[in-house]
This record gives sequence, structure tokens and C-alpha cells, in this order.
Amino acid sequence: MTLPSPLYVILDPSAAKGRDPGAVLDAILAGGGRLVQLRDKTTPLARLLPLAQALRRRCREAGALFIANDRADLALALEADGLHVGQEDLPAPMARRLLRPGMILGVSTHDEAQARRALRDGADYVAVGSIFPTGTKAGFQLVGTALLRQLRREIPVPLVAIGGITEANAGEVVDAGADVVAVISAVCGAPDPEAATRRLLDRIRDAMRAGRPPGPSLTASGESL
Amino acid sequence: MTLPSPLYVILDPSAAKGRDPGAVLDAILAGGGRLVQLRDKTTPLARLLPLAQALRRRCREAGALFIANDRADLALALEADGLHVGQEDLPAPMARRLLRPGMILGVSTHDEAQARRALRDGADYVAVGSIFPTGTKAGFQLVGTALLRQLRREIPVPLVAIGGITEANAGEVVDAGADVVAVISAVCGAPDPEAATRRLLDRIRDAMRAGRPPGPSLTASGESL
Repeated sequence: MTLPSPLYVILDPSAAKGRDPGAVLDAILAGGGRLVQLRDKTTPLARLLPLAQALRRRCREAGALFIANDRADLALALEADGLHVGQEDLPAPMARRLLRPGMILGVSTHDEAQARRALRDGADYVAVGSIFPTGTKAGFQLVGTALLRQLRREIPVPLVAIGGITEANAGEVVDAGADVVAVISAVCGAPDPEAATRRLLDRIRDAMRAGRPPGPSLTASGESL
Repeated sequence: MTLPSPLYVILDPSAAKGRDPGAVLDAILAGGGRLVQLRDKTTPLARLLPLAQALRRRCREAGALFIANDRADLALALEADGLHVGQEDLPAPMARRLLRPGMILGVSTHDEAQARRALRDGADYVAVGSIFPTGTKAGFQLVGTALLRQLRREIPVPLVAIGGITEANAGEVVDAGADVVAVISAVCGAPDPEAATRRLLDRIRDAMRAGRPPGPSLTASGESL
């Protein structure tokens, strides 16, 4: 499968410094973001739902993919494009069975064994992290870029790097083998999320152009490269 | 629809005083409980799942209904008999659409308007509470037995009373119009959950025999009355 963007912006309202998540999403879309995940682990679902529905609509209008975090029922109710699960969430094989055909399933992994299992379990992309120390996730496991280099050789689906990635180190992550760079704070917490999105996309595309041979068709789409 | 028991035991591991939830469930089943809900708002799903699967299996073997709380994805993954949602959870109409045909949908309500809406939204039973003060749910809304009396006249599906119900006041709840009495602490926190289940069932059946004319077929099954 192909992801529509080498930048994956995870919209976590708690990382948006009190700003309206809808406004942050608009900035992401205006900055060129085309792959968005809604991640909110704390708001009760009934209260989150109107926001989630509005964000889902805006993504559809902008031609961006909208991925729900953790809850397959939310992903289904929103008719999201996909679901992202972590190691503590609904196991990937169960999530796969619940999702409608064509829905994207992404899985967070923190070591080689988890990444291999995610692949066996039918993950459409494998997320790897935390690449760098991060303030967004308590108790993160630091894996560095080494795990990306290692997995690059054996994971044929898009590899999504996550955790502590900024404009300053995004290139390094691409060089290590990431097809997609995922960020939370670097966009949601930026003074200007639109500009931050644009600059991150530029950095990632520059790094892809400079350092890597043309990838297999399985990697993230390079249409805007 | 018919519920298989006038006693609804909500198994919340955090109310089980450190005892093994599987052992508590066995006691409930041995005591005659045939309607069980698993309610765990805190354990990450991946960790909860093996327990939930084991409980689900035991309920099936015992001929008891097994209802999942809050998460439709968990209910579906477990092939539970139904899902219970509160006012802060996935809205009932969305839950209804996600559940497989024949699955039971129950909704917690705290006033007349919510109960009417639950009915319109396709609830198979309407739960009403908190009837009495309870220690299990922070920030509960106290509705008393008055709301039961009021709703009894207009809600044609089983009315489930919940919140602070014990052996001492279960009869009062039945007299007010409850078809089903739901408990958490009164069983999960009891010194002997099996005996507590049995005594509660006795009290409820006594009250039903003594005080009420034979109910419509819509009310909870009286097969063992």
C-alpha cells in the first residue's frame, strides 16, 4: 500500500497548547499535510465525537487520510480511513477483523519482534519509536535510528518513524530508512503549525531526494517529491 | 426482549478487593447469576483481553449472558452478547449500527429525557441510576426510586436499576418498578460473592412475587421465579 504523504501529523489536542484542534488541523492541511491521525486518550468518547467528526470531514474535503487512534469502534463510527493501535491497545489481528475492507491498519512497535509480528498480523504500515526522547508520551521506549536501519531490510510495508522528531533531525530519520516521519509536538505545539508542516515536508523531501535511491512502490508515495 | 435474570452482576475487577476476577465470576455463576457485565475502565485493552476472553467463555459455558462495557470494539472482538454504554460513551445510535444483529444494547440514563432518548436510539434495556448513593462511581447522579416509578409507565423495555443497591434495599427497587437489579459492590465486594448472589436473587424474586402483578413479556424473564 501507499501512504499519501511522507509526513504523518498526529493531532493530539493535549499537545496543541490550548488551541482549537479544528484550527490546528486546518493549518496542517494548508501546510500540505495529507496524513493525519487523531489521538486523544483522555476525552470521553461522547464528548470527543463531534470534534472527531468535524476533523474527519475536513480531511476528506482536503483529500487527506484520517486515521483514528486506539479505538476500532471510533474508527468505524467515523468511517475513518484507518486505525492506529499500540502494543497496549486492541491486538492487531482483532483490529484487522473488525475493520472494513480497505481500511488502513497501523501498529506501533518498539523492537524487531514487535515489528515482525505487526507485519504478520496484517499491519499496512509499521510505526517504530521512540526514535528520540519525547515529551509527548510518558514511559516511552527509546529505540534510536538503529532500529529503523535494521527493520528497513526486512519490513516491506511503509516504515513510520515516530518520537521526538523535529525539523532538525527529520533528515537523519529519513536517512536511516523511514518512509514516513510522524510528529506530534513539532506541528501541534509549534507557534505556526502551517509553517511547521511545510518546513517538515520540505526537510523530509530534501532528505529523500538527496540520500536515497528511488524506493520500491511499497514505500510512501513520492508524488509531491 | 427478555433478559435471562432479574439480577445483573457487573464485574469490575477494581471492586473485587484484589480477588481474581475469574474466581469471582465462578462464584457469581455458582450463585445463580446469569447476566454479567465486565466493566473495567482502566486496564489497557491488550492486558484486559485475555481475562475478558476467559470470562466470556465461562459465561457461555454457564448459559449466562456476557455484556461488555463501553467499547463496541471489545464487545465485537469477544463476540459478547451485548454492549453497555453510558452517557459519556459511544452514543447509542452509533453503537447500535456497529453491533451485530441480535446483540443486546443497554444504555445508562440519569433522567427521563435520557431514558426516552435511549429507547428511541434502540436500547434493549434502559439502566437508571444512581438509585442510592454509591462508592463505585465517582460523581454519580442520585435519582432515587422516584425516577424508576416515573419511567415504569413509559419505558416498555426492561428497566435496570443501578447504584448503591444491596440486599437490604433490593426489594424497594423492585417495588418501584425495576425489572432487573444491577449490582457491583454488593457482589464483587462481598466476603462471599456466591452467597451474596444467591441472597440477592432470593430477595429480588421474593419482592417480585409479593408485590407485582405478572409483568408483560417485555420484562426480564421470570423463568426461575
